[in-house]
Amino acid sequence: MKKFEVAVIPGDGIGKEVVPVSLKVLETVAEVHGGIKFDFQSFPWSSDYYVEHGKMMPDDGLKILKNFDSIFLGAIGNPALVQDHIALWGLLIKIRREFEQSINIRPAKYFKGLKSPLVNPNDFDLIVVRENSEGEYSEVGGRIHKGDDELAIQNAIFTKKGTERAMHYAFELAKKRRGHVTSATKSNGIFHSMPFWDEVFNEVKEEYQDVQTASYHIDALAAFFLTRPQIFDVIVASNLFGDILTDIGGAIMGSIGIAPAANINLNGKYPSMFEPVHGSAPDIVGKGIANPIGQIWTAKMMLDHFGEEELGSKLLDIIEDVTNDGIKTPDIGGTSSTEEVADEICRRLKKAVSV
Amino acid sequence: MKKFEVAVIPGDGIGKEVVPVSLKVLETVAEVHGGIKFDFQSFPWSSDYYVEHGKMMPDDGLKILKNFDSIFLGAIGNPALVQDHIALWGLLIKIRREFEQSINIRPAKYFKGLKSPLVNPNDFDLIVVRENSEGEYSEVGGRIHKGDDELAIQNAIFTKKGTERAMHYAFELAKKRRGHVTSATKSNGIFHSMPFWDEVFNEVKEEYQDVQTASYHIDALAAFFLTRPQIFDVIVASNLFGDILTDIGGAIMGSIGIAPAANINLNGKYPSMFEPVHGSAPDIVGKGIANPIGQIWTAKMMLDHFGEEELGSKLLDIIEDVTNDGIKTPDIGGTSSTEEVADEICRRLKKAVSV
Ligand SMILES: CC(C)[C@H](C(=O)O)[C@@H](O)C(=O)O
Ligand SMILES: CC(C)[C@H](C(=O)O)[C@@H](O)C(=O)O
Repeated sequence: MKKFEVAVIPGDGIGKEVVPVSLKVLETVAEVHGGIKFDFQSFPWSSDYYVEHGKMMPDDGLKILKNFDSIFLGAIGNPALVQDHIALWGLLIKIRREFEQSINIRPAKYFKGLKSPLVNPNDFDLIVVRENSEGEYSEVGGRIHKGDDELAIQNAIFTKKGTERAMHYAFELAKKRRGHVTSATKSNGIFHSMPFWDEVFNEVKEEYQDVQTASYHIDALAAFFLTRPQIFDVIVASNLFGDILTDIGGAIMGSIGIAPAANINLNGKYPSMFEPVHGSAPDIVGKGIANPIGQIWTAKMMLDHFGEEELGSKLLDIIEDVTNDGIKTPDIGGTSSTEEVADEICRRLKKAVSV
Repeated sequence: MKKFEVAVIPGDGIGKEVVPVSLKVLETVAEVHGGIKFDFQSFPWSSDYYVEHGKMMPDDGLKILKNFDSIFLGAIGNPALVQDHIALWGLLIKIRREFEQSINIRPAKYFKGLKSPLVNPNDFDLIVVRENSEGEYSEVGGRIHKGDDELAIQNAIFTKKGTERAMHYAFELAKKRRGHVTSATKSNGIFHSMPFWDEVFNEVKEEYQDVQTASYHIDALAAFFLTRPQIFDVIVASNLFGDILTDIGGAIMGSIGIAPAANINLNGKYPSMFEPVHGSAPDIVGKGIANPIGQIWTAKMMLDHFGEEELGSKLLDIIEDVTNDGIKTPDIGGTSSTEEVADEICRRLKKAVSV
């Protein structure tokens, strides 16, 4: 019996609704598998926690998390309680950084049973490899008062190591897929960091003669997500560009509510973290209608990470079938509740495996 | 007779194809108007010029341009000849900065006769007000070698004055339109500059009690361009975010090839510059099939700027009608050449006014 210790952080808003039902799905996966077991331990770290304690998580939070095999996170953010950047840098981004989760993998693909806003979403299937530890998201910077003006300075920092690491990951992934990597750049406008990004890309691609490449400026690339998403296989992008592209990726699938993500620690020193692309969606909290698919698909990525790829891909097939059969939440045109969607997925999981 | 002195910079690639035909359209506008006259003077500054002279324009280029009423530019960039950032910072961005063209206005709207990639593009009508002089596009930064690693540092600089200026412009514009301003932020991830952006937005909006507002993170906002572009009226965005959103804006209209833009100098000290959103498109150069609509619509924005709004809006109606009647270039599903589209627009302009 393989046992996986998972730290669970439901977080804010709909995180608290989609995480519990996803744990049920994972329990069901373990049950039908027979040879694996999850040990979930839940932590209430969130904006509510901040209101009570003046911080998003306890001082020894990272020390506690470090001992787990992985972290399963819902969503963080509740602007009514804590300013967003305080909340995010106090928990989500902090974990990504401190645990050297240097890569954020985010697939987007044509999804059966969903209505894409695109006229032609047919059969696109891409993965964004997002640099997850540096770049435009940096705490370096500050403000200067200058006469009656004020300046805010934001430093984006790109290391060669960090950039290469993301690119190598993307090329290795492409070798297992359709053999194509696209680089998201903006070297025509962003003077220092992006020409550097291009240089590193040009160096790294030399090592992968069998992989085809392309490089587009982020503005054009974002537009291509609408006009021809089919041209992409693996896309490697900076922290910010990856963030933007993957929300668009969610949108072209038919809902940001279904897009999954994995924050991967590559050196094996710390746990990886699994969290969907969507946020805490304060507007629909408490209604029981949050779409659980993003979180459940994220659970599937955690299964993959644990080496349970076969069950993972069965789970994804079931998610698609359930959606296609109309058992879905209102955001994607259904009338089912969060709970009902998850229950149906569990039911089919049991059936699929017992047959 | 009002006379407008216009400096013309066709630039690179299809710029050299769409600018000449747009000048014909402007000549026709002058002809049918009767009371205005354009004096065009063309400058060959471009990547070809760079190859010959080692710079994108002569040292006294700005001094020459300063005396014109406006600048009409095609596209800049030919990576085969000059690295993009050298080309752009040596001409396009240089002019934007030195001539304090602090605002870049870019409309996007449902466009008759175009096939949008969206299932529901109905009747959206928005304008992005892009901060055009600072922000993420900055020359401040550089590289550091650190042991066997290398760092690129990029400073984004936001001044209160520059940020306020863009926001005031957006609010004033919204008052003349549907009274709604959306701010594009990313204050959850970008630690210094974007919380500053939010603060300034919150201050400025206090001055406009009659204007409704919203604020979205750029990732979510980009996705809303696909799922519900109809919710937007005026959007105010930083240099980078405005760049990305307006390419998506072009895409949802049905082609980036039709999106226009105006770089506005607000203090009256220098000329404004008119250049479409699209680039130099090296792949289709020389075929005579470049879509001239972006450049012609940009000419319309120049007419507005000169106070000729009535003729401007007549011109835009004609552009839409011509497109709707199928006289269009291959990129938007037609078989017409660049020249044929422009000629038809001229023909109808004459007809419309002679009636
Ligand atoms: C060419 C490039 C520097 C430019 C920009 O990003 O400003 C272009 O994309 C635009 O939108 O005008
Ligand atoms: C909440 C925010 C800081 C975060 C990000 O931009 O990284 C989110 O948008 C995401 O994509 O995971």
